[in-house]
Amino acid sequence: MKPVVVPADPHGLFNSRPTFSHVASVLGGPSRVVMTAGQVGVDENGQAPADVKDQYTLAFANLARCLEATGATVADIVKLVYYVVDYDPNNRLHVKPLVTFLKGHRPATTLVPVPCLARPAFKFEVEAYIAIPQAPARDVDVVVVGAGLSGLKAAYDVQKAGYSVAVVEARDRVGGKTWSVEHSAGDGKFVDRGAAWINDTNQSEVHALAQALGLGLVVQNTTGNVVQQDRDGRVSQFLYGGVPAGIGASAVDDMVKIRDATEAACQLLDIRDPVRTGGHLDSQTLEEWIRSVGGGPTALASATVWTRAMLGLEPSEMSALFFLNYCKSGGGLLQMRSDRKDGGQYLRFERGTQSLSLGLASLLKPGTVVLSSPVRSITTTQADAAKITVAAARGDFVCRRVIVSVPTPLYKEIAFSPPLPATKAALASANRLGYINKVIVRYDTPWWRAHGLCGMLQSFVKDGPVSVTRDSSVDAKQQYSLTCFLAGSAGRAASRLPQAERFRVVVDQITATLGADKIGVPAPVGFEEHQWARDQWAQGCPCPAAPPGAMTQYEHALRSVHGKVHFVGTETAYEWKGYMDGALRSGIRGAQEVVSALSPPRL
Amino acid sequence: MKPVVVPADPHGLFNSRPTFSHVASVLGGPSRVVMTAGQVGVDENGQAPADVKDQYTLAFANLARCLEATGATVADIVKLVYYVVDYDPNNRLHVKPLVTFLKGHRPATTLVPVPCLARPAFKFEVEAYIAIPQAPARDVDVVVVGAGLSGLKAAYDVQKAGYSVAVVEARDRVGGKTWSVEHSAGDGKFVDRGAAWINDTNQSEVHALAQALGLGLVVQNTTGNVVQQDRDGRVSQFLYGGVPAGIGASAVDDMVKIRDATEAACQLLDIRDPVRTGGHLDSQTLEEWIRSVGGGPTALASATVWTRAMLGLEPSEMSALFFLNYCKSGGGLLQMRSDRKDGGQYLRFERGTQSLSLGLASLLKPGTVVLSSPVRSITTTQADAAKITVAAARGDFVCRRVIVSVPTPLYKEIAFSPPLPATKAALASANRLGYINKVIVRYDTPWWRAHGLCGMLQSFVKDGPVSVTRDSSVDAKQQYSLTCFLAGSAGRAASRLPQAERFRVVVDQITATLGADKIGVPAPVGFEEHQWARDQWAQGCPCPAAPPGAMTQYEHALRSVHGKVHFVGTETAYEWKGYMDGALRSGIRGAQEVVSALSPPRL
Repeated sequence: MKPVVVPADPHGLFNSRPTFSHVASVLGGPSRVVMTAGQVGVDENGQAPADVKDQYTLAFANLARCLEATGATVADIVKLVYYVVDYDPNNRLHVKPLVTFLKGHRPATTLVPVPCLARPAFKFEVEAYIAIPQAPARDVDVVVVGAGLSGLKAAYDVQKAGYSVAVVEARDRVGGKTWSVEHSAGDGKFVDRGAAWINDTNQSEVHALAQALGLGLVVQNTTGNVVQQDRDGRVSQFLYGGVPAGIGASAVDDMVKIRDATEAACQLLDIRDPVRTGGHLDSQTLEEWIRSVGGGPTALASATVWTRAMLGLEPSEMSALFFLNYCKSGGGLLQMRSDRKDGGQYLRFERGTQSLSLGLASLLKPGTVVLSSPVRSITTTQADAAKITVAAARGDFVCRRVIVSVPTPLYKEIAFSPPLPATKAALASANRLGYINKVIVRYDTPWWRAHGLCGMLQSFVKDGPVSVTRDSSVDAKQQYSLTCFLAGSAGRAASRLPQAERFRVVVDQITATLGADKIGVPAPVGFEEHQWARDQWAQGCPCPAAPPGAMTQYEHALRSVHGKVHFVGTETAYEWKGYMDGALRSGIRGAQEVVSALSPPRL
Repeated sequence: MKPVVVPADPHGLFNSRPTFSHVASVLGGPSRVVMTAGQVGVDENGQAPADVKDQYTLAFANLARCLEATGATVADIVKLVYYVVDYDPNNRLHVKPLVTFLKGHRPATTLVPVPCLARPAFKFEVEAYIAIPQAPARDVDVVVVGAGLSGLKAAYDVQKAGYSVAVVEARDRVGGKTWSVEHSAGDGKFVDRGAAWINDTNQSEVHALAQALGLGLVVQNTTGNVVQQDRDGRVSQFLYGGVPAGIGASAVDDMVKIRDATEAACQLLDIRDPVRTGGHLDSQTLEEWIRSVGGGPTALASATVWTRAMLGLEPSEMSALFFLNYCKSGGGLLQMRSDRKDGGQYLRFERGTQSLSLGLASLLKPGTVVLSSPVRSITTTQADAAKITVAAARGDFVCRRVIVSVPTPLYKEIAFSPPLPATKAALASANRLGYINKVIVRYDTPWWRAHGLCGMLQSFVKDGPVSVTRDSSVDAKQQYSLTCFLAGSAGRAASRLPQAERFRVVVDQITATLGADKIGVPAPVGFEEHQWARDQWAQGCPCPAAPPGAMTQYEHALRSVHGKVHFVGTETAYEWKGYMDGALRSGIRGAQEVVSALSPPRL
């Protein structure tokens, strides 16, 4: 029997449905105790919103974060205690957010009216007592930490080689940063909150997987004009593949010059040894390098569009070498930025990119993937160096090899024993994850096409909020949408707005750019977004970037094996870093390392 | 070591005895987390009594219900938190009910004065954090759910056949509805809160068991007059075995006619196939049938005495077929109602009927019976259909067969997987448990005998509260008592009174009936009662009754086997349904089914 928190309705007590039970028990097996601090309705800086209703919503959102961080689900909650200031029995503000939060689960609860809380502004607090069911320890050959594309691919290859494997995932789903959502259940109108594009030539690994899984692909629309928004907000258009026409000749020169200089510089690098071939570029930021090669304001604005859309960061926030090597990993700046054949954004998936991950997971033996079970420690003892213990939220594993597939900045979430070598730890803490929020605006029609637009906006406005957009429609499913990149510092600023307000400014910018020239822009029929930087298990996206000096000091530690623990993930790929193809390639490498280590030597 | 909650008294802290400990630990083995919602002092409809002291008592009673429902005992409580409105440090109202509740256990506690609680009327709330010790999973041939007479008999017979068996019981005692209590410890003055009578002829199974266990028996006193209280309250007397003299000739005719009609109708039924032999009687209630055969007001009043005392229900609350078949199962109305040789109420037990259950339990191997461990699920998986998992509060069992001995309406407390077949589930939810509360009034002398009374009252007063009484004395032990049946709607009405008030109206009715003619009725020396309808694991007594139509639709599912799960209990007996003899017979049948299924076939 699966261990679960079970509500009981004692005979003779009043009916406590639907929001709580008089008594809740953990049945069916051992469990692990987890308790939260009282969660109040404050933002990440500890500020409480003035509207008390927002405090209630925020308190439950913060409680959800606590759960997620420890691998608990709402169903694992045994008890909730509410502390309410100004309690009004006729206007119980906690009930609505509570019902949403509980999703039908009924923990035991107590409500405690109080005169005040820890600070005068706080009006509501909720705390949880949790029991996470524990599966018996499992013994496998290999544990893969993380069920994103790199981890799933590694697991699949290990399984193919005949070894037993478990994939232990922190989230309640597979896919990592491949995450696709339907507009409404079963309508087939998928959009991608995360990774979206592949190509069918130089991204051979991901394309082969898509083919093997029989996944439907869609060619990225590049027919028509790009809308260009200049630094001062003025709008012009130019045919996709050309250069902006309405920003003035010297600005175009500035832009073209830095584009060509970047392309040339990156082509000089060896992706298998970037520090040897471009070490001098690691002493400065990309912004400093752009200025050093004569780039002006438009050059910098253009490069800002690149770094925001590609890494969620500003040119000042990464080493020039890192950026140039990143471009080179995709064949160069032009190819990586291209939406056409051979380019980084050529094809999309009818059912979203998560279908790659779901497909890979379906090829693993039943029970291989364990969800909602963050790995908290990876321990090799001196006493038995042949065995590694991987401690996870829902049960431990004992194995012979481990493949860690989480982004380097998240290594801090795992206690390694023996600890990671200093260089690897330093690399993990030096690398920085960017902010990209794809606000996807759904429409009933691809209205922009009727006006000769391909759906791409490129904005040089510093505060955006949108830096670029793409037509992310799937015509066969009548799924029409514009995917708007809120990224880098512009994205971070917009993240501080309430969601409705953020969506409003996105629509305003669409209207002012793609909707200029008095095009009637229809009302959206829906929005999607995911703030990856606020995501417990992403903490940013798509790929960590190195500041000046970090590659020179630590790049050699990126793929180094730590005892019997191996490391994969798209950032560790040579080709197509930050892309799904890179994730798969890193998974292949990790599996090869492990299989080779486990296999008896052949004479 | 048995896992237990252990208080500690840290050196240097103030003395926390007797009501709490500064710290409480769970020692000695794995435990299971249970938490209650804050329990306030309300009744089952959520109403708080006006007297705040009653709220305190009720809150602890409700907390006790929570514990009972999940198989926790007071000793399993790790921590209590009290929330007190209008807290007065000089008048700590919680202390007295707390000390009674804790029975010497000392959990860690916190007291929190609060400005108010969830509703303005609530003045006190208490919540518990509990750890229930978990035994390792046990592997046996057969698990019996419930340690009442039917379950214990089944277990004993299974053990005799050479199979290993565990009896898993929700309560903290064996016996189910056989429950006998002494006046004071060791004085031997037992009375029965539940089942009380047997005979030594046609109740051969229970009598044989009593003989085998060497239990002392007492013949029911029927010497002297019965007191008859008519519908208008007027009192008369008649010799036991005769008919009432003082209610008028036409009333006597009405009564005799329905008695004879009922006896005749029930004798036409085949207890092994009541639906075939009396299906037409299942379309109406007993009340409708009485009217249809010409029964008048006295007939109905008389039948109401029967159904109240026999099933705790009104004639309008059961199918005519059900009642007639129930009578037939005891040989007919007259025999079932008789207190003399061959009748249903001929013999009692010197040490109460629980001695039957205690005796049977003592014949089981040590460790067979597990108390305070409600079974919450019975699971047969497709993966291993040979093994059944029985999940219980204090540890799980894996077995080959299960015998469920709980009343059908309590099947809902167990999650069956696969689920019960629809007919069995419908039977369980259609059947209705009645209300009988035996208020036992203890005296120093059998004062009624001196006045020519046998101790039996039969009251036709609609609201009773007492419908019938019996002399339940055990002269050899100088235990003198009148057992007063508060049953059916009259009992339910009386159950809403505070206990002291209920005892007072019972004494008033005794005085007005048995004490009429200026007999000096002495003051009672004690009272006993148990409201079985409020009991978590009885939810009524003695036996569920079927409404019209239910037997026709579902009776065939009463004893049907569900996979490898078998069902016993007095209601499933052919003979003496609702009686201890029926319970034993059903246990014999269940054990035979299981032993036959487990035994290798003989050629």
